[in-house]
Amino acid sequence: MKFLVTGCAGFIGSHCVDRLLKDGHEVSGIDNFSTGRKQFLEDALTNSRFQLHEKDLADPRALDGVLKGEVDWVIHLAANADVREGLNHPQKDLRQNIEVTLNILEAMRKAGSRKIIFSSTGSVYGDTTVIPTPESCPFPRQTSLYGTSKLAAEGLLSSYAEGLGFTALIFRFVSILGERYTHGHVFDFVRQLKTNPDTLHVLGDGKQRKSYLEVEDCMEAIMQAMRYRWTKPVEILNLGTDEYVNVDQSIDVICKEMNVQPKRQYGGGDRGWPGDNPFIFLDCAKIRAIGWHPAQSIRESVQKTTRYLLENPWLFKERKTS
Amino acid sequence: MKFLVTGCAGFIGSHCVDRLLKDGHEVSGIDNFSTGRKQFLEDALTNSRFQLHEKDLADPRALDGVLKGEVDWVIHLAANADVREGLNHPQKDLRQNIEVTLNILEAMRKAGSRKIIFSSTGSVYGDTTVIPTPESCPFPRQTSLYGTSKLAAEGLLSSYAEGLGFTALIFRFVSILGERYTHGHVFDFVRQLKTNPDTLHVLGDGKQRKSYLEVEDCMEAIMQAMRYRWTKPVEILNLGTDEYVNVDQSIDVICKEMNVQPKRQYGGGDRGWPGDNPFIFLDCAKIRAIGWHPAQSIRESVQKTTRYLLENPWLFKERKTS
Repeated sequence: MKFLVTGCAGFIGSHCVDRLLKDGHEVSGIDNFSTGRKQFLEDALTNSRFQLHEKDLADPRALDGVLKGEVDWVIHLAANADVREGLNHPQKDLRQNIEVTLNILEAMRKAGSRKIIFSSTGSVYGDTTVIPTPESCPFPRQTSLYGTSKLAAEGLLSSYAEGLGFTALIFRFVSILGERYTHGHVFDFVRQLKTNPDTLHVLGDGKQRKSYLEVEDCMEAIMQAMRYRWTKPVEILNLGTDEYVNVDQSIDVICKEMNVQPKRQYGGGDRGWPGDNPFIFLDCAKIRAIGWHPAQSIRESVQKTTRYLLENPWLFKERKTS
Repeated sequence: MKFLVTGCAGFIGSHCVDRLLKDGHEVSGIDNFSTGRKQFLEDALTNSRFQLHEKDLADPRALDGVLKGEVDWVIHLAANADVREGLNHPQKDLRQNIEVTLNILEAMRKAGSRKIIFSSTGSVYGDTTVIPTPESCPFPRQTSLYGTSKLAAEGLLSSYAEGLGFTALIFRFVSILGERYTHGHVFDFVRQLKTNPDTLHVLGDGKQRKSYLEVEDCMEAIMQAMRYRWTKPVEILNLGTDEYVNVDQSIDVICKEMNVQPKRQYGGGDRGWPGDNPFIFLDCAKIRAIGWHPAQSIRESVQKTTRYLLENPWLFKERKTS
């Protein structure tokens, strides 16, 4: 099959490209390299079945010539993934998550391409108190611009399915961990501890409970869901592990791996930042019912991610931001 | 108190201005007159407590100088209200409903204004099968760009409440009827029957069940909710009547009022257009619990609206669209 992967040079995007190529597919990838890394595509770029397009999806014409109708699935992973800084640059989620998704849907409409896989987020559950949270929990209120923008993108997909015959698989991810992971709490903690192994600043009270999923398990879930014969044009699927850890437990794993014993300084409060969800734990019965289950535990993922970061110090170097 | 009303020259906006002035408040209104009508502000413009700003909220600086911090409440009614044509101009909902809302929130943030009332829609309940639909129904899937854009705007408000201390009252309206009503099914039917009283084209099968609310009842609900001492910074409130009619019943009222007996030609299917909800009926227990109840029935509203349209033929004249 032929795929187009947006955000192909990102953490999850590059894993997606590698997995599709490994499975024998043809893959076009698009990335503006605002946060993506060419190093993540090292293997892919040596493969004749991979084609890289360095373009910015904020331009409605970015997919002209890239999407020619013969693409079986668009896997849309390009996004602003920074949930924490939302209110510091309120236009960013709107532009990069809502508008870019609309640009992709319009390009697909013109090209006659109709099948799309989308990375949404557990953050769309906002202020829900139903935990573990199923896809059908009571209509929640949004608490972050990131969650709001991903929910809006979901709505765009689902409206295009309703009115124009699109097929959409929407995955609500927990935080993803693994090799090439370049932002989030493990990254922040490892960076801090490399600079100063004696003190660790922790947002919130360290008791925030979060669920994580290893990136290869995430890819396997997407591949299985793509092969499954769903009966509805739009399927929304939670994607996470059936477990959670709190921030302190996560730090324990990182510290053991780095062989450090820092004093932990807590910012205080029950959440890391305004709009943070102090407890994210998804009910993943729906995706599990098709036979998928994660192979790696959260502790294994944190460990693997920490090791990867320690082996790749270049990732901590400051980059020019676009 | 001091109010800023966006979309002040629109159907609902102009009623809001009149009501606030009648209650003795000071009102600034902003409208770009893309669909608003200066005629609707005839009374308001003679009132020294009203100030009109002819500006386009698509411009992030539109509220510079208008919102100076001394505004008690912003009532944000400006919107693209055309749910049916969403996929024919997919950028419109994004620009006019999401982006404009973000512009307003940013202007409020800068000006130190923190209280906002927002007109959302029952369309955010998308594909829900829970009817009457309460605010806490299972997380629905969106079916229209209009619903998607209003839900995104709700999320923006709610994120600003979470992170920046905003207070928001979000009303999920059913369709509103009454004087100055200028789009929607009653408008379409009256226009058709004025041209040709013998034949009426009806979208769908005429059995779509919808709930409507008279605009003065809508205003009374907003005023009562504004005075009520809510305990949470964000309150979401359904706003409708405890009844519904189907399209055929609505046509019966219009035909009786116009004294015509057209042959009805149905487009067929259970919905008027892709993404239409064949049954909209909201559970309004939450707003009723604070003491509000609608004074007018749906049939009275349809009747009143029809009479108004017949008395104001100028509304059917083609306008240059922006």
